[in-house]
Amino acid sequence: MVTPHATMGRLCIAGLGPGDLAQITPAVREALLAADDVVGYFPYVARAQALLAQEAYTQAPAQAVQWHASDNRVELDRARQALALAAQGRQVVVVSSGDPGVFAMASAVFEALEAADAPPAWLALDIEVLPGVTAMLAAAARAGAPLGHDFCCINLSDNLKPWAVIARRVQLAAEADFAMAFYNPRSRSRPEGFVRLLELLRAHCEPERLLIFARAVSTPDEALQVCTLEQARPEMADMRTVVLVGNSSTRRVGRWVYTPRYYDPVDAADVTSNGSTP
Amino acid sequence: MVTPHATMGRLCIAGLGPGDLAQITPAVREALLAADDVVGYFPYVARAQALLAQEAYTQAPAQAVQWHASDNRVELDRARQALALAAQGRQVVVVSSGDPGVFAMASAVFEALEAADAPPAWLALDIEVLPGVTAMLAAAARAGAPLGHDFCCINLSDNLKPWAVIARRVQLAAEADFAMAFYNPRSRSRPEGFVRLLELLRAHCEPERLLIFARAVSTPDEALQVCTLEQARPEMADMRTVVLVGNSSTRRVGRWVYTPRYYDPVDAADVTSNGSTP
Repeated sequence: MVTPHATMGRLCIAGLGPGDLAQITPAVREALLAADDVVGYFPYVARAQALLAQEAYTQAPAQAVQWHASDNRVELDRARQALALAAQGRQVVVVSSGDPGVFAMASAVFEALEAADAPPAWLALDIEVLPGVTAMLAAAARAGAPLGHDFCCINLSDNLKPWAVIARRVQLAAEADFAMAFYNPRSRSRPEGFVRLLELLRAHCEPERLLIFARAVSTPDEALQVCTLEQARPEMADMRTVVLVGNSSTRRVGRWVYTPRYYDPVDAADVTSNGSTP
Repeated sequence: MVTPHATMGRLCIAGLGPGDLAQITPAVREALLAADDVVGYFPYVARAQALLAQEAYTQAPAQAVQWHASDNRVELDRARQALALAAQGRQVVVVSSGDPGVFAMASAVFEALEAADAPPAWLALDIEVLPGVTAMLAAAARAGAPLGHDFCCINLSDNLKPWAVIARRVQLAAEADFAMAFYNPRSRSRPEGFVRLLELLRAHCEPERLLIFARAVSTPDEALQVCTLEQARPEMADMRTVVLVGNSSTRRVGRWVYTPRYYDPVDAADVTSNGSTP
């Protein structure tokens, strides 16, 4: 049996929020200040470095931080590296953008922990997940309150699941009249996925349905576009965009888009029927 | 036509996160430091007061803050009060727990703005929504990564929508094999809703499906229970609990619960078929 001991390291999987350093929680900042090693995709490591460099924070890190920046699409390798460092007794922070539990590094770390070849000592590590402001919440805040009623959240990156699963989920989400948030809508390698998504939405939702294309929210590259499903074009999305789709009650008020808290199936699509919404 | 002018006030709708002051973003803290008026449900106003009282923050508020604490279930009145104060030229912060856009005050403010009797000047106000860590993300982080794959988020409070809508959404979410997050699972006035939810889940998901009852996460009252659907009992939830339901692939590793990023419908429930999942 493996028991933790005094020199056992610690692994913290931390969410850096949508991009703005002012949206990183103090809990995450404290974890970074205590870190021996920071592991992550290189733009997120750079964001953590920028946070620790801020003049507003009078504290300096307790020791020289080792920075381990890696490329995209190596999440499992990165997770193993972080676990191995923690198993050496080091204080390790894995940084994710947004929230680490939403299409980010937390699941990758637990997958690495569960793998058949994982050292048993890893299971005894002190692991903590520190939540953050995930992209859809930052995007929704900028637009108003489009996720103010029941909603779903779908990763459009189809290298981890078959397209048929995505298509079925979108159809059922439309039948449920959920507002929807789509992450990773358009990759360079598979740009056709988002084209198909718009076709699917058009088959299940009315042309007036409101969409929000929220790109790089809270960064200098921020761009927000609101349009109807009829007006939506695939090139409005890229990999830095989160796409929000309202439910059938989502509306504009002034420059804002919001979904009311109440829901009346007489006014809205009748989700209690067994058919698809129009 | 109404145009903003120099003395126009500002309304900020801010998320205070799950409870721990260390999970309130610096952006929200800055808004509170600049506030003339803070408006909210009384425990959230108390949380904002506790934040500003923290010794770690050397800055004092720019001026004496007027605190406007009100009871639950008066969201629209509170929204109108905040808008009216901002229209007087004041810097107003409406505080919500978690994220203001998820079953919280942001939609209520936009509803008040849209109401037929709303003064037209309100539409010209400088309004900003500041996101926060919503309860399901804090709960998921404590448990591991149960929302690491596609998921949905449903408010079980049925005073804003008919139960038939909730029931249909849960059924469709189970067919889609979404992980699910349920807010406000059990109110004093309608405790039967959560009993019916468990019945619904049992009709659509296998008995081994993992559930997480996360109560008052990140506060001194925090309590986390993980069990199977078969073991779940209605009294495990109250109004301070968020209930997370895994998808068919959600599993335990050590003391953690997580949902893998990948999804193989051969291993998991076959969501591509047209029937319900077992």
